Parts: sequence; structure tokens; C-alpha cells
Amino acid sequence: MDVKSQLAPYAKRFEKALSSFLVRTEPQPLYDAAWHLPAAGGKRLRPVIAMISCETVTGDGERVVPFSLALELIHNFTLVHDDIMDHSHMRRNIQTVHEAYSEPTAIIAGDLLFAKAFESLQGFDGDARIATTLYELLVNAVIEVCEGQQFDMNFEQRPIVSEEEYLLMIEKKTAALFRIAAEGGGVAGEATEAKRKALRMYGNSLGLAFQIRDDVLDMSSDLKTLGKDIGNDIRNGKKTLIAVHALKHAPGKQKQLLEEIFGNRKASETDVKSVAALFQEIGSVSYANEKAEAYSHQAIDALKEFDDSSAKDVLIALAHYAKTREK
Amino acid sequence: MDVKSQLAPYAKRFEKALSSFLVRTEPQPLYDAAWHLPAAGGKRLRPVIAMISCETVTGDGERVVPFSLALELIHNFTLVHDDIMDHSHMRRNIQTVHEAYSEPTAIIAGDLLFAKAFESLQGFDGDARIATTLYELLVNAVIEVCEGQQFDMNFEQRPIVSEEEYLLMIEKKTAALFRIAAEGGGVAGEATEAKRKALRMYGNSLGLAFQIRDDVLDMSSDLKTLGKDIGNDIRNGKKTLIAVHALKHAPGKQKQLLEEIFGNRKASETDVKSVAALFQEIGSVSYANEKAEAYSHQAIDALKEFDDSSAKDVLIALAHYAKTREK
Repeated sequence: MDVKSQLAPYAKRFEKALSSFLVRTEPQPLYDAAWHLPAAGGKRLRPVIAMISCETVTGDGERVVPFSLALELIHNFTLVHDDIMDHSHMRRNIQTVHEAYSEPTAIIAGDLLFAKAFESLQGFDGDARIATTLYELLVNAVIEVCEGQQFDMNFEQRPIVSEEEYLLMIEKKTAALFRIAAEGGGVAGEATEAKRKALRMYGNSLGLAFQIRDDVLDMSSDLKTLGKDIGNDIRNGKKTLIAVHALKHAPGKQKQLLEEIFGNRKASETDVKSVAALFQEIGSVSYANEKAEAYSHQAIDALKEFDDSSAKDVLIALAHYAKTREK
Repeated sequence: MDVKSQLAPYAKRFEKALSSFLVRTEPQPLYDAAWHLPAAGGKRLRPVIAMISCETVTGDGERVVPFSLALELIHNFTLVHDDIMDHSHMRRNIQTVHEAYSEPTAIIAGDLLFAKAFESLQGFDGDARIATTLYELLVNAVIEVCEGQQFDMNFEQRPIVSEEEYLLMIEKKTAALFRIAAEGGGVAGEATEAKRKALRMYGNSLGLAFQIRDDVLDMSSDLKTLGKDIGNDIRNGKKTLIAVHALKHAPGKQKQLLEEIFGNRKASETDVKSVAALFQEIGSVSYANEKAEAYSHQAIDALKEFDDSSAKDVLIALAHYAKTREK
């Protein structure tokens, strides 16, 4: 069974909860803008991870649904604001929010999604201490995401970024939400401290694998497959793991080419393609794939804490998917 | 004793808590940008209202300080994002965040302030149910502020806005935070339902008076006094209560002048001044001042629920201040 089929029952339950939540009200176009991205689909990985993680502990992921909603809304809020900052035009094969509406409305729509995430958490029907812990996980993760986004922007301005710095950045920017998805699922299921920790490690490693594979996909796929603008990363000098590796290991002549084109906003399409080819030649793309593979193994390793179950199988399948996915 | 002296002891306690909270950490310039406005002062009305309201109930406003911090951080988050949307250059006599840093960093800095507001609430040391109520007040208020901001922007595009629509807009955009400041102070102090309701009404009316007086000040003060850009509101066709009144009551010839200049982004300084003079002549400025006065009375009226106390006296002084303040 492929991972998509394994996730389908969870995704279906989540979509149902989400569509009840996305009520369109006044003022337009604020709510239209806010629901633009969440209504357009997406993988729903974070909410689904929370549901499966909760099920791993309690056999039932239902109680974590309000937290799952919060995760998806937070994720979408960060996408809306990131797309403004990156001047992106497309996302999920539709226009980005600031393109479809306006930049001011997109800023507020992101803010509203943020607030709505916390509102959805009010639907958590359980112990007040657990609700408080879920709030805390969410608040701290958003702080990390903000920090990670700023590190990412700072790195674009720097000629060299170490692999360690890169990893810290994606741990905040991407892995934080995966980490608390898994951990929050455990918390909602009243997991033991050991199991909660195992889920946190699982989510973190999964997030790292996912982001590194994202770097690879951004570099190799075209607009149609991934629904994002390509070339942007190279023109902006974005320090993906591939770029970090290439900038360190490129031999003389190739390094010169890299320094000319990488981070040059006026680079032509041919230039961009030559840098992409260079990343392959130096072995930076393979290196990134190996790293994604290693984090995927690390994620699976963290699950040793759990007895076999169908929920655990899905978490393992997700870890395999994170490093091999094509979109 | 003037209101400033009456507020001073509360403001001092708040500043101390705030400066402990504003820790500068990595990544720069994110934290510098986030603390740019809150560190630059401001009236601190919302946190101080929460502290005094709590004191009215319990005789001690200390326990509401984490909520007060949250209010001030939320207020500042909305200012940072509003300034981007309005293309404002100055605030509190210093550069706005997007001018001092960059627009992307200002967007994230606002998001971080938002998240930090919820983080500060984790410092609330009391009953978990009370903490949950404070969370809910805050979340719902942010949703209202977002909605109010979008209504405000929508109204700029419309030729006519009714007074009712205007009032709904400022009730969301401005009064919401004043309302939950007072109500949250009551909640933290474990007020009876009647006192909680009275404080909510007090805060709401105070917020309306405050915003309407703000409309008057924006129209009459110069850059130095208020630290904001002037002329912007007239050029953007901003539907302040003054404009709403004037657009309805301006006689023929003056109405024509209004329609030419009001909302014309290219209006000259002379044009802007002629519109400001028109607002005086028609009586729209007086009308707004009367409205502010009426809401101020309404705020004081709501306090009948409380026995006399020095804290109550300060709340009354604040209501007088809201309608008479010069900056």
C-alpha cells in the first residue's frame, strides 16, 4: 500500500473538520483571502502526523483534531507571509494570496490565520493542563518558525553558511512544526515522558528529512510539478543544503561560475540551469539526498519506543516518503 | 492630580516587567525589529487599564501583568503590520519598523510580537480556567482587530460609509483591545459576572472615545505633536467619524470640493488643508468631539457597579482623558 492510501483515512477526517472550520464571513475579502490557501488543499502532513502520533499512544486520534487544525492554520499563515516576502506568484498551482488579493489583505489574512489557529485549539475537549501544554508547544514553535525565517533571509546575504548553521535554520523554520505535530499528538494522547520524547525526536528528524528533500525537489522539478516558482532560490542566493555543500566543495573554475550566478537576481534562465547542473556535477544533490535518507532513518529509529501497530506503520511509511517523495 | 501622575505607578511597574521581557537574542535583526516599537515607549494604556481594572476588583493588579504584557505586544504587532499597509514612515517620533529594517523583517517582527504575546501569558500564575479565559479573550480580540483593519481598508474604497458601519469598524479595530484590557483585568481578579460585564462595557466605551478623539487629533495636530504622518488620512479617503459626518452633511459646493480632494492620493498640501478647514466649518470636528464625550460618559456610567476606590478614580480620570487628550 502506498503512503497516500495509508494517510487517506486520516486526511479525510481532517478535511471534514477543516471545512467545517473555514466559515466565510464578513469582511470580504479578508476571509476569502485567509481561506484561499487552506481551501486549496496541500498535503496536510502536520495535522495528519498529529493524529497518527496520538493514535500510536491511545488508539484514537480524534481528540487531537483541534490541535491538528491549529497546526495546519499556522503552517498556512507562515506560507502566506513567506510568499509576500519572497515575491512568489504561485503556490499549490494557484495564485499566492497577495497576488490574488493585495499585499495588505494578505498580511492581515496571515495574521487572521494565526489567530484562528489559537481559536481552533479552544475546541480541545480535555484536561486543562494538556490544553495548556498544547498552547505552549504551538506558541514556542511559531517563535521558532519566525526565527528560522529570519535566519534564512540573513543567510541569503552571506557568501558562506556552514552546514551546522543551515541545520539550525531548518530545524526552526520547518522541523519545529513537524516536531510539535508528533509531540502534540503524544501529549493529547497522554503519552509517557519517554514516548513523548520519542515522538518529538521522530517529528524533528522527519521535518529535517522533509526540508532537505524539498531543497532537492526545488532544484530539480519544474513549475508544473511543484507549483512554486523555480530559479528564485538560485537568483536569491538561498542557502539550501545543496548550495551550502556546493559553495564549500566546488573546485576552482566551477566555484567562480557559482559566485557569478548564485545570488544574482538578474541571472538568465540559462545561467540558472547551469548552476543547477553544477549542483549535480559536484555531487551536492546526491549529498542532500543522502542526508535526507539519514534523517529519515533517524526518525524511524526514534519509534523503537513503540510496540508494532498500524499507526506506527504509517509513521514509518511517512519517514520513507519524506526522503523519496517527488513532490 | 493629572491623569499622567495617576497612571505613573502602574506604568512604572509595567515598564519594569516589559523591559525584563524584551530580551534581545539571535537572529538579529529580528529581535531588534520586534522590540523597536515597544522599547520606544508609548502610552501603555491597554496594559495599565488591565492592571487598574484588576485592582478595582481585588485591590492588587500584580497578577494581571502577564496579560498586560500580552496586550501591549499584540497592540504593537498590529501597529507594525498596519504601518506596512499604510506605508507610514514615522511612529512615536521614530522610524516605523519596515523603514528602519525592511518590509520582510517587519512582517516577521509583527508575527513574532504576536507569538511573544501568547508566550507572555504563560507567565500567568493562577487558576488554569482563568488562564484559558484570558487566552480566549486575547484570541477573539485579535480576530476582531484583523476584521476591523480590513473593514477600515474596504471603507477607503467606498464613497460613503454610514456612522453605524464606522462604529462597528472601530469597535473591532480599536475598542476590542481596550474592552478585553478592562474585562481581562476583571477576569484575572476573579470578578463577579456583573463586575466583569461592567468592566467590559467600560473598556469598550473608552476605546470608542479614544479612537474618535484620535480621528480629531489626526485631523488637527501636526507631525511633531502626534508623531504620525498627516495628510495621509485625507489623501487615502480614510473614513474617520469626521469624514463620515462631513460626507453626509456637506452642502452642495463644499461637497464637490470634498469629492475632488478626499481620497485623492495626489492632493497637494494646500488641498489637504482646505479639506481639514472644511471639516471644521461643517461642524464635523465638533460632532466627533461630542461623540467622544458621549462615549466617555458611557464608560464612566458603567463603573456604577463599583464602590469608590482610588483605582476606580483612575479609571474615571482615564475616561476624561480619552476625550480631551491633546496627543
